[in-house]
Amino acid sequence: MISKSSPLLIDALLRRPIPRTPVWFMRQAGRYLPEYRAIRARAGSFMALCRTPELACEVTLQPLRRFRLDAAILFSDILTIPDAMGLGLNFVEGEGPRFERPIRSAADVAALPIPDPERELQYVLETIRLVKRELGGKTPLIGFAGSPWTLACYMVEGGAGRDFREIKRWLYGAPELLDPLLDKLSQAVSDYLSAQIAAGVDVVMLFDTWGGILPTWAYLRFALGTSEAALKRVRECHPSVPAILFTKGGGLWLEAMAASGFEAIGLDWVCDIGEARERVGHRVALQGNLDPAALYSSPEAVRREVERILDRYGFGSGHIFNLGHGIAPDTPLESVEAMVEAVHELSPRYHPPA
Amino acid sequence: MISKSSPLLIDALLRRPIPRTPVWFMRQAGRYLPEYRAIRARAGSFMALCRTPELACEVTLQPLRRFRLDAAILFSDILTIPDAMGLGLNFVEGEGPRFERPIRSAADVAALPIPDPERELQYVLETIRLVKRELGGKTPLIGFAGSPWTLACYMVEGGAGRDFREIKRWLYGAPELLDPLLDKLSQAVSDYLSAQIAAGVDVVMLFDTWGGILPTWAYLRFALGTSEAALKRVRECHPSVPAILFTKGGGLWLEAMAASGFEAIGLDWVCDIGEARERVGHRVALQGNLDPAALYSSPEAVRREVERILDRYGFGSGHIFNLGHGIAPDTPLESVEAMVEAVHELSPRYHPPA
Repeated sequence: MISKSSPLLIDALLRRPIPRTPVWFMRQAGRYLPEYRAIRARAGSFMALCRTPELACEVTLQPLRRFRLDAAILFSDILTIPDAMGLGLNFVEGEGPRFERPIRSAADVAALPIPDPERELQYVLETIRLVKRELGGKTPLIGFAGSPWTLACYMVEGGAGRDFREIKRWLYGAPELLDPLLDKLSQAVSDYLSAQIAAGVDVVMLFDTWGGILPTWAYLRFALGTSEAALKRVRECHPSVPAILFTKGGGLWLEAMAASGFEAIGLDWVCDIGEARERVGHRVALQGNLDPAALYSSPEAVRREVERILDRYGFGSGHIFNLGHGIAPDTPLESVEAMVEAVHELSPRYHPPA
Repeated sequence: MISKSSPLLIDALLRRPIPRTPVWFMRQAGRYLPEYRAIRARAGSFMALCRTPELACEVTLQPLRRFRLDAAILFSDILTIPDAMGLGLNFVEGEGPRFERPIRSAADVAALPIPDPERELQYVLETIRLVKRELGGKTPLIGFAGSPWTLACYMVEGGAGRDFREIKRWLYGAPELLDPLLDKLSQAVSDYLSAQIAAGVDVVMLFDTWGGILPTWAYLRFALGTSEAALKRVRECHPSVPAILFTKGGGLWLEAMAASGFEAIGLDWVCDIGEARERVGHRVALQGNLDPAALYSSPEAVRREVERILDRYGFGSGHIFNLGHGIAPDTPLESVEAMVEAVHELSPRYHPPA
């Protein structure tokens, strides 16, 4: 069924014919924009910015004013859930997130509450309502959460661990301790995404930032399996909202991901998108996969790399152009402009009229 | 042809029938050993230790005295080549390697000398001769080099870059500048490996630590292609020395690696070794692939993980047990012992008599 009134992003996610490839990019609302840095300075801290709906709304809309993007993504953080669980989130300048009370034992897991999004995460839902009002139905809004596995990594490590030794001690030494933690997180993630959908987001995305640190057997059980469980619970109330799964370093597992119920799989920049398409067949759409580091080169080089990816994906719908990872804070704006414009200009030839 | 007198490692590399799976591990001569730390303190600096053949020899042999290992690996560093090219290598405590004079331009590349191993890297060759004398022909010695691509990363970044933005600026903005640099490095690597073979090493290994940061097209051209070229030049003088290629994060490209002329492919811990074996068929042996972080758990858990990997590889020759990455400096010795002993004890059942 072709809906002429759907936004490009939705049509691409559902692999319906479209006139060109839609484009948005991870962390498009963020530090590479001077207007973001101005608001961030006004807010005082990163979490204060997340928790102030008017400012979070403003920041969500900023990249759409500058670039011809086909989606907005809620400005927030994947760690709002553990924060709402009472772990005490702080962002240490230059060091990333830190939890005051990391999870260290089965007793800690048992004591973890599952947040009620309408209460502890109300500020996110309010931001969504404000953004939706501003977008006026023209541009779709993507909501998101961290995957249960990725949240567990941060919660057990107490922050962005470099070698993940704490959670790997659990993984190899006492994997049975991980199940209750991931069950709770899976429930918290699905409650949170369901509340985001009820508040108005058009698409949901799970960020499985740390799935790629796992051996295959553990990825399938603890990362993909728990993301799938979270999605299944979301679908009980919201059967048709399109969902995207992004696993950094997940290129080995595309077939399993494609069978997990998500409409689209996000690719990092390592995996060739043409080979990925062959592997997943017609089961899912693909999102990606420009190396964010390519944006440090010239606008001409960016254009060449955009063309390479469009060409590797090939003809037809089912591709959402994006970066293979979040944009870096010091990315030159002219590269971003070149990327977005190149997708607008070069992609129509890959979408021949029916 | 079955040679009853070959060491297990060589037989496994050539996929000849063997009674059990051989085992060694990356960075087995290193900081996790108290006896290493004592010698390192005596030497004064890491590079002084590398450059003193008597001490480098002693350190190479240390792990063999403690554990029942099937190979020694030369104690040295992948950055000896750029050091010999005059870039000025230093190891900053807690920060990793740093070059005083990184490569920043085509002129820098043009000015780079290709080292004569018999002159600038004599200390490595002398270490090899000492180690071989000590080993007395019983245990094979593995020589190694960094892959041309990995060396280029360090040389252009000036050290262990976190986002590789300098070399990626070249990659995307001016890939034609990379060819002359990688050509020189490929020649330097092959000269160096050839000299190591002439000095006595029984196997050579290329460490492509940073191949996995590349998109597929760039990996094939700049990382695998240049490693293959280096191997081809080695083979002109030494047609039969077995060679191993290890690319961290290279799981997507096993088929291409298996067709590149190396006898064995090293796997990190992400890739399932059973699936890897199916993909490469009978073309190469596989080395790996225990997660080094598994060694932070209990000896019982280590044993379970060893069994999982032996079982996933399955019956027959062609597997060299190893870690999926270098051992961490604070790894408990009892875990290492448990790993090595588990391979000795559990692997015979996977090698049924003919």
